[in-house]
Amino acid sequence: MELLKNRIRQDGTKIGTEIVKVDSFLNHQIDIKLINEIGKEFARRFKNDNITKILTIEASGIAIACITSMYFNNIPVIFAKKTFASNMEGDFYCAKVRSFTKGTVSTIRVAKNFIQSNDNVLILDDFLAHGEAATGLAEIVRQAKANVVGVAIVIEKQFQGGGKKLRDQGLRLESLAVIREIKDGQILFE
Amino acid sequence: MELLKNRIRQDGTKIGTEIVKVDSFLNHQIDIKLINEIGKEFARRFKNDNITKILTIEASGIAIACITSMYFNNIPVIFAKKTFASNMEGDFYCAKVRSFTKGTVSTIRVAKNFIQSNDNVLILDDFLAHGEAATGLAEIVRQAKANVVGVAIVIEKQFQGGGKKLRDQGLRLESLAVIREIKDGQILFE
Repeated sequence: MELLKNRIRQDGTKIGTEIVKVDSFLNHQIDIKLINEIGKEFARRFKNDNITKILTIEASGIAIACITSMYFNNIPVIFAKKTFASNMEGDFYCAKVRSFTKGTVSTIRVAKNFIQSNDNVLILDDFLAHGEAATGLAEIVRQAKANVVGVAIVIEKQFQGGGKKLRDQGLRLESLAVIREIKDGQILFE
Repeated sequence: MELLKNRIRQDGTKIGTEIVKVDSFLNHQIDIKLINEIGKEFARRFKNDNITKILTIEASGIAIACITSMYFNNIPVIFAKKTFASNMEGDFYCAKVRSFTKGTVSTIRVAKNFIQSNDNVLILDDFLAHGEAATGLAEIVRQAKANVVGVAIVIEKQFQGGGKKLRDQGLRLESLAVIREIKDGQILFE
């Protein structure tokens, strides 16, 4: 998606050779017009897949999932929770997810009543790095005996191996911008 | 907002006398059509206030803020972060916020470059309970020497005092559903 790649080139901040910060338009401040274009593009790629729900994870995925849903006829969005609160009761599907940027392992949870076995679920997230979050979300969908239609990613950092990890599980992956390498302060797209 | 109150009556789960769970449509699974109506209503109430940015806090506020922005001509949405990650660098405005449901105190952060002194900021959140999050967000806007236009809340739990706390600071508060009391398993609206 050229619009997105140009925006990453223009406003993405490189930190070393592994991190691209896009917090001026994607995951701290959010450019709603850009997210609409992203939503339209995901809808174009998955338009024939009869998707019934979008599953993402807090926090940054929520913005993209909600606006994307508008291009899928307002299907429900579910976001997996990373922390446990006293008002959470009932049964949950759970998976363990490691965050490389935060240096933590957390249990992500989705209430059982929000995914049914006849759902066609699109997993969506802002970044794909090592593939930990998407793998955890796919595991949750499988626990619910529902169908994972595919994984929709805004920015894939190919050099961290998440894409291969997902495809090795037989998952369909659609990434709008694939970064092959960050080298000499340049972002090289696939 | 009658549509919202009816939905809370129909699908809200009461836990004791203090907690209303709305996770089937607002903060775990999200009903995008309803959020669009909420966004329209906020836009109606603040249409003459020349709002330039919407400030919310992760996680549940993000969905509502992003869709609401579409009714304010796609103005930028900023969400305050609750946790610190290794890819966060630069200067931040910070405030301490206590969460009564999670039993924790956290530091919320907004990068300094995303709020300018000439911004008219709308603070937005899903719930208003004790007013801690909204007060922290207002403090951050004041640190940036910007203007807080008001506080937009989907569900205010009046009996927990947050509304009074905000008005005592001179803030304009617009809540779409105000719960006076939860009594005998009934939600009583103001």
